[in-house]
Amino acid sequence: MSGAAKLVGVGVGPGDPELLTLKAVRALKEADVVAHFAKAGNSSNARAVVAGHLRDGVTELALLYPVTTEIPKGAPAYCGRIGAFYDAAANTIAAHLDAGRTVAVLCEGDPLFYGSYMHLQARLAAHYPTDVVAGVTGMSGCWSAVGTPIAQGDDVFSVLPGTLAEDELARRLADADAAVVMKLGRNLPKVRRALARAGRLDRAIYVERGTMADAMAMRLAAKPDDEAPYFAVVLVPGFRSRP
Amino acid sequence: MSGAAKLVGVGVGPGDPELLTLKAVRALKEADVVAHFAKAGNSSNARAVVAGHLRDGVTELALLYPVTTEIPKGAPAYCGRIGAFYDAAANTIAAHLDAGRTVAVLCEGDPLFYGSYMHLQARLAAHYPTDVVAGVTGMSGCWSAVGTPIAQGDDVFSVLPGTLAEDELARRLADADAAVVMKLGRNLPKVRRALARAGRLDRAIYVERGTMADAMAMRLAAKPDDEAPYFAVVLVPGFRSRP
Repeated sequence: MSGAAKLVGVGVGPGDPELLTLKAVRALKEADVVAHFAKAGNSSNARAVVAGHLRDGVTELALLYPVTTEIPKGAPAYCGRIGAFYDAAANTIAAHLDAGRTVAVLCEGDPLFYGSYMHLQARLAAHYPTDVVAGVTGMSGCWSAVGTPIAQGDDVFSVLPGTLAEDELARRLADADAAVVMKLGRNLPKVRRALARAGRLDRAIYVERGTMADAMAMRLAAKPDDEAPYFAVVLVPGFRSRP
Repeated sequence: MSGAAKLVGVGVGPGDPELLTLKAVRALKEADVVAHFAKAGNSSNARAVVAGHLRDGVTELALLYPVTTEIPKGAPAYCGRIGAFYDAAANTIAAHLDAGRTVAVLCEGDPLFYGSYMHLQARLAAHYPTDVVAGVTGMSGCWSAVGTPIAQGDDVFSVLPGTLAEDELARRLADADAAVVMKLGRNLPKVRRALARAGRLDRAIYVERGTMADAMAMRLAAKPDDEAPYFAVVLVPGFRSRP
């Protein structure tokens, strides 16, 4: 109901609906179209977070990934299919923008930090006005839920994907004061070995469903098995030479 | 007005009052005491962000740093004075908690990510109930204001203080897919040289007053001088092998 063609990436935060920003709530009220990414057959987590703030009768647009973790990332088949998917999604959104509509694209966490929204912005920002509503990241949600200070002062902080090779993970963990390892899932045994080699296993905290009502955290060294969902994280706090 | 002794670290986000979360707004309404850090003689930036949400008549507690950048960090004189300051601040807050009050401590950005609040939590969490309201970080505010995707997919992302030695900065910049360099100020000439040595100067974006109304951003390579405030940042976007 805005009458203005604009693409808005809206960070909805880590999962707790109360961690929406006032600006995100306003962007949802002003949007003509609310778009959300989901895996085909699943509902969008981001949409569930904002359900209480959607305008009655707002147009919704589900953008369904053709593939997520079934094909290794970096494989040509993955890049080709996911690239074509983003092209098609951008074209669909462009049609709404050409009709003078404001399109809000929901993003878990922060839109420009490991989010899918950036692939739409990269395709559309040269042609349409865009805006980005920063959000609380998933990792901030995790360390806040657990009450674990992650970095202070002159700490070097690194975000590492659990998909890295064990040697590289161990090297990078030893080289950072503080770190978060994402994308655990079946990578957890390797991540655990890399932490031990880097001398960081004793500081490592395993967090599952970080900002859901059923969040669970424990010292990784005390976790008896290597079962982990893909979106679990390991926190390696810095904050050691504190005043 | 809560009747519950509780310490709450409240992230107020990067500066734009609209980037407050709904949870932060509620925490402010429920607090008996609202505490904020500031340099002696200055007003608190975090308090300015939340000014529109403070309850009439709420008790305010200013926590005034005895020293900020005048003494090099890590120097015994700095650690001693700042440690004694946090001890005294924790004692003052403990007296409010002992009286059954809820104390909200305002934090720019996210409380447990390079924030002063963690030093209070480290002193008080063993003795009192605590809660942390995650916030949008200053760096998210910066890359969102500029509309620059910072990291995607399996990118390794690092936060580096500009206080590091030039060799170490250059090595770490070359070793990360994406990075943010904080604490610029007089470190900018060194940071610029390190970026050039790491082959990252062409990608570097200089951002000043990231989420203020007068935000300014430019390619660092095009910045004609080395003047920078302490809280300016340099963004080094990853996001290169995108689909």
